[in-house]
Amino acid sequence: MVRIDGRDYDELRDVKIIRNYLKHPQGSVLIEMGNTKVICTAMIDDKVPPFLKGTNTGWITAEYSMIPGSTVHRKFRDSTRGKVEGRSQEIQRLIGRSLRGVIDLNLIGEKTIWIDCDVIQADGGTRTASITGGFVALVDAVNWLYKKGEIKQIPISNFVSAVSVGIVDNSPILDLCFDEDYRASVDMNVVMTDDNQFIEIQGTGEKSTFSKDELYKLLNLAEKGNEKLVSKQKEVLGNISKLIGKDKEGEVHG
Amino acid sequence: MVRIDGRDYDELRDVKIIRNYLKHPQGSVLIEMGNTKVICTAMIDDKVPPFLKGTNTGWITAEYSMIPGSTVHRKFRDSTRGKVEGRSQEIQRLIGRSLRGVIDLNLIGEKTIWIDCDVIQADGGTRTASITGGFVALVDAVNWLYKKGEIKQIPISNFVSAVSVGIVDNSPILDLCFDEDYRASVDMNVVMTDDNQFIEIQGTGEKSTFSKDELYKLLNLAEKGNEKLVSKQKEVLGNISKLIGKDKEGEVHG
Amino acid sequence: MVRIDGRDYDELRDVKIIRNYLKHPQGSVLIEMGNTKVICTAMIDDKVPPFLKGTNTGWITAEYSMIPGSTVHRKFRDSTRGKVEGRSQEIQRLIGRSLRGVIDLNLIGEKTIWIDCDVIQADGGTRTASITGGFVALVDAVNWLYKKGEIKQIPISNFVSAVSVGIVDNSPILDLCFDEDYRASVDMNVVMTDDNQFIEIQGTGEKSTFSKDELYKLLNLAEKGNEKLVSKQKEVLGNISKLIGKDKEGEVHG
Amino acid sequence: MVRIDGRDYDELRDVKIIRNYLKHPQGSVLIEMGNTKVICTAMIDDKVPPFLKGTNTGWITAEYSMIPGSTVHRKFRDSTRGKVEGRSQEIQRLIGRSLRGVIDLNLIGEKTIWIDCDVIQADGGTRTASITGGFVALVDAVNWLYKKGEIKQIPISNFVSAVSVGIVDNSPILDLCFDEDYRASVDMNVVMTDDNQFIEIQGTGEKSTFSKDELYKLLNLAEKGNEKLVSKQKEVLGNISKLIGKDKEGEVHG
Amino acid sequence: MVRIDGRDYDELRDVKIIRNYLKHPQGSVLIEMGNTKVICTAMIDDKVPPFLKGTNTGWITAEYSMIPGSTVHRKFRDSTRGKVEGRSQEIQRLIGRSLRGVIDLNLIGEKTIWIDCDVIQADGGTRTASITGGFVALVDAVNWLYKKGEIKQIPISNFVSAVSVGIVDNSPILDLCFDEDYRASVDMNVVMTDDNQFIEIQGTGEKSTFSKDELYKLLNLAEKGNEKLVSKQKEVLGNISKLIGKDKEGEVHG
Amino acid sequence: MVRIDGRDYDELRDVKIIRNYLKHPQGSVLIEMGNTKVICTAMIDDKVPPFLKGTNTGWITAEYSMIPGSTVHRKFRDSTRGKVEGRSQEIQRLIGRSLRGVIDLNLIGEKTIWIDCDVIQADGGTRTASITGGFVALVDAVNWLYKKGEIKQIPISNFVSAVSVGIVDNSPILDLCFDEDYRASVDMNVVMTDDNQFIEIQGTGEKSTFSKDELYKLLNLAEKGNEKLVSKQKEVLGNISKLIGKDKEGEVHG
Repeated sequence: MVRIDGRDYDELRDVKIIRNYLKHPQGSVLIEMGNTKVICTAMIDDKVPPFLKGTNTGWITAEYSMIPGSTVHRKFRDSTRGKVEGRSQEIQRLIGRSLRGVIDLNLIGEKTIWIDCDVIQADGGTRTASITGGFVALVDAVNWLYKKGEIKQIPISNFVSAVSVGIVDNSPILDLCFDEDYRASVDMNVVMTDDNQFIEIQGTGEKSTFSKDELYKLLNLAEKGNEKLVSKQKEVLGNISKLIGKDKEGEVHG
Repeated sequence: MVRIDGRDYDELRDVKIIRNYLKHPQGSVLIEMGNTKVICTAMIDDKVPPFLKGTNTGWITAEYSMIPGSTVHRKFRDSTRGKVEGRSQEIQRLIGRSLRGVIDLNLIGEKTIWIDCDVIQADGGTRTASITGGFVALVDAVNWLYKKGEIKQIPISNFVSAVSVGIVDNSPILDLCFDEDYRASVDMNVVMTDDNQFIEIQGTGEKSTFSKDELYKLLNLAEKGNEKLVSKQKEVLGNISKLIGKDKEGEVHG
Repeated sequence: MVRIDGRDYDELRDVKIIRNYLKHPQGSVLIEMGNTKVICTAMIDDKVPPFLKGTNTGWITAEYSMIPGSTVHRKFRDSTRGKVEGRSQEIQRLIGRSLRGVIDLNLIGEKTIWIDCDVIQADGGTRTASITGGFVALVDAVNWLYKKGEIKQIPISNFVSAVSVGIVDNSPILDLCFDEDYRASVDMNVVMTDDNQFIEIQGTGEKSTFSKDELYKLLNLAEKGNEKLVSKQKEVLGNISKLIGKDKEGEVHG
Repeated sequence: MVRIDGRDYDELRDVKIIRNYLKHPQGSVLIEMGNTKVICTAMIDDKVPPFLKGTNTGWITAEYSMIPGSTVHRKFRDSTRGKVEGRSQEIQRLIGRSLRGVIDLNLIGEKTIWIDCDVIQADGGTRTASITGGFVALVDAVNWLYKKGEIKQIPISNFVSAVSVGIVDNSPILDLCFDEDYRASVDMNVVMTDDNQFIEIQGTGEKSTFSKDELYKLLNLAEKGNEKLVSKQKEVLGNISKLIGKDKEGEVHG
Repeated sequence: MVRIDGRDYDELRDVKIIRNYLKHPQGSVLIEMGNTKVICTAMIDDKVPPFLKGTNTGWITAEYSMIPGSTVHRKFRDSTRGKVEGRSQEIQRLIGRSLRGVIDLNLIGEKTIWIDCDVIQADGGTRTASITGGFVALVDAVNWLYKKGEIKQIPISNFVSAVSVGIVDNSPILDLCFDEDYRASVDMNVVMTDDNQFIEIQGTGEKSTFSKDELYKLLNLAEKGNEKLVSKQKEVLGNISKLIGKDKEGEVHG
Repeated sequence: MVRIDGRDYDELRDVKIIRNYLKHPQGSVLIEMGNTKVICTAMIDDKVPPFLKGTNTGWITAEYSMIPGSTVHRKFRDSTRGKVEGRSQEIQRLIGRSLRGVIDLNLIGEKTIWIDCDVIQADGGTRTASITGGFVALVDAVNWLYKKGEIKQIPISNFVSAVSVGIVDNSPILDLCFDEDYRASVDMNVVMTDDNQFIEIQGTGEKSTFSKDELYKLLNLAEKGNEKLVSKQKEVLGNISKLIGKDKEGEVHG
């Protein structure tokens, strides 16, 4: 099978992660997966949602949006429509759950870390890029707290990344671009940690159903892709990487 | 492992499906999975969404809601809050996708079938009960069209059911009630057809991550549960069951 | 005059009130008036609206909604439209006023009792059924407080029920079903207590005006209907009925 | 019983109706009932709501609002809250029903007449003043159509006015001002025609219930009040009054 | 150049300001600029917005709205549309800024003064009339506080008025009525103090651009118009006028 | 006077305009004014608003938004608040007016050109940068139509740019960064064409009023700034610049 952009079936698109992309947030990256480009920021707020007040526990909340110029046909703003569309809500709930899965929120105190993922160019895989990039922004924001002395360790137990896999023309492939995604009969997003555990799996037979055998093949591809994404995250985070999952041998966070 | 209600790890709760539960809709069931009770209706409308106008193709759209008295702490109405909350949107998108996966919408003409799932009592598994019950209501509505002579066959290729599985106290279990769901470290909803194919898998490590091995065990449980649910659907649908997937050997729908 | 369902002009439809219909609310009933079916729940919340904070007084608030499958043509959800429609607001204000009319809210402390009326099948008279059924749910919720020792008496002074009357084909009739309601020239809802006092009267000349004489005939019919409804309430409430209006000879509540 | 402003129990406040109060609408009045002041306008639009398209029938729709400075404590704007509050909706539905009750909408063609009632000063009875004043504005707008030759007659069968009555300190009184309304145990709004027929009755036991006898006394007061209001309407409308209800002896409108 | 209503190019329309127009607000005026009529009220609330809590500083907030009957084609209510339209928001922000510009909010304590401008008839220049009239209502409300002894002085440093100027048929003119405004190539609103300083200038080339020379001519016209408006304000305020800007020689407010 | 970043009082910040910044829109630029960064896109839609249907005339509509990570304190999304805040509405109305001022919309047919300005980093002057950058995106989109043969000329009569000026510490300065803007007593945005004509002037005395003399000084500074911005636009647009204002000697557009 020949892919539209010449990639092998198990090959990621070019990945770029630029840290400190913006001036104001405590963490901010521009992540590019081929033509997909997402600005991920992490900002710290000294308030928590009502259900956490007085618990000495923090929170991570994520928001996801696409700018109107990010798509082929102009994307209408949720603000103009007066509500956040279902798809965006689903994605931001996924991002939040994925990142909360590897951080011990008891250790950051009553703070909310806002993860904002603003897609500036979309070519498939924007939600998985948001998780992969959002993780790096989160680490930078938590590290900012650590350097200021507000927390005593980086309470993050694992690296988290996400990638899409799917079945196109009966072949399982890794990291679908928009044209592939559009033609896929099965589409799956897989969020994993750096020790090959799953945080979330969402697979849908968009145009047909799929068998257990096909599922296993897709999961193997996702594993391979996520390993490479974590390598990239480690590369750009440099020395900070070593502070993550520090106490894994001892008590496990999260 | 002893479950809270004495069930075996691979045992469903009592399932009841009452057809023709309401007088007005073309299809309507009350489905009970233990204490979880959902009214699922299917109503036919002669309009389609704008993107389908002139295509001679139909549509299925689903809405999901909980009445305020369905939960321990009163559930606030979305109508009072002025918007449908993220969780409901996610669920109704899932129900719609699952049912659209087995029907050939080209064969019903420009009609919308509204699937409404109103939870009147919640004890875990409301979204999977909505799919299992919604499928039966859908069949009744499509059969209503068939009996009226508006369509020449029942264009449904497969039975669809859904069940939750999860890991509680390190044990994989089938069909979680609310108390189990609350304590689960991993929670997964699996939508399948009667020929053991997947339509949708959504698995989340709520409190911890999970391995490939654990995933496989959960999928096996889900397979077992869905087989029983399809048997129940066939039982309540009686002879109509035989009209489903009729032409499978020939051209496949959906 | 022969009525569509063979009833006499002054005859109610079959009335059923099933108490403890749902598991979670403090009070819950399914009320059926012929084909009209409404789930009425009463749930206690330890907060009051801002205007009552610090007054040691409670509140009753009612919400009314129809599930989409309750009507012949699918009822659109208010939540999807983003606002509660005028008719629903009018009805829920009426239910709240009617029930607040017979309870001494000073005696329940700073609590809100939420009355939720969810119509699952509509065939005329849903608002009056909501009041009649909502009253029983309210009694059960207040009795729950009483049995828990949180209040020293049942501070409810009277039974409350409601019924519709109207003029169809120039004849006054009791308890209109949908087809009658649709054809009525005058339509009136009458909320009364068990000592034949009025709490609320709402009469509208939908298709023509009406004279004082006609009005008086309608009120007499309503009186007769409400007497029977209160009997039914007393029957299903059994011994609890005796706790209502206890201190009427002494200081009057409400 | 001495009333707060020295009136007799069966006495209206001073009534003023200024026609052609504004320059742009086809009909516009300022109506004053004592300190209550409402601007009522009637504007003709060449569109009808979707359910009337193609029926050659017109429609009347009413909107009611209070300016923030009309009340003692500033009234928050519905527009700022993002929705029309329940009370306003109830009132505007009442105004619309009352005026539609005396006009034959088949005779005005596919037009919508907008009746807008904007309260600029509130001292009780704003909804009844809106109906009484709105009727005059409506007549002027319909007469505008008549003078332009767009309709062949004034298709209004009767005069319509409305007044409040209530029980204060155990006495039935007519036309309550705000202070009386606030203290009333029973409050009733009565919409009538010039031939003493009822269009709408809405009576509420705000603080206590009421008997049939009390009800009859209140209706007699309302009759007296409405007679005087119709006289005032006739006075200000002058010759146009004669065009109303012209064909009553023959075919009845509405 | 002959103007549509015979005025000279530098002539205001007839200005009327009626103080104490409504009964309830602390300050209320009806301002008329020709056919443009706006009710401006000033009401005092003992709360401030969250950002001012604990600062011992007050706030002025303005709201602007048009009643539906104020315009030739019925103006749809913002409340029905569910949001305040952009134009209204822009205008109310302008009114608020203009009035806050001349009052020392530190001297009124934690109070909000609500300025409401409700246009009852529109013929151009409604926003500038709102500022000119709103200022008088504000003075009355502040004077009410002063007379009650809640503040020790009138902390208003200057008179504020506003007027529109524009270029029509290549001629600069003062105080445009609607027909002129509609045809204007340049339209400018100028808010000034009584010592000929600017508070706000908003000039737009609606149909063409404009040169610096044209701008200067327009500003001279605006200066002339505002001088007359301030005279009118002083005339209607009478003796209270003398309390404004009292301490100007000393420390300047605002 | 020494400015915070060492600039002279009449000096712009570094200006960068990157064309073709995004892949999908017909025109897209990233404009940077120092630390202020805005993505401006122009996208063509084959529909027009209702009021233009059948007129063979086009429209330009602008939307403005800031991503949450663009500001020091996280900017809440309008979509979450359910409405576009007043400031954003004001800005997008300004952008739309400014660009419509130099294009002959009759010559583009029934098309809407959407101008979207998404601020990714804010340091003062975001609205003026949006106009300056939006103009370049607009030219590219119109040129795309021209190259496709859909229009016969570039119907843009002039270059448009915008800049802020203000008074800080009693000195008039050009192109305020956020810290200067925060401290400014007078703040003004000036939109101009390349022949030194004004399209829009918005000046506000934020903390004090200003005199005619100060106004003139500010306008001179704005003129100087806009001249440089137009030079920059011409530089990045290269040859396309020559197609703008082509027929100026003849019939003037816009």
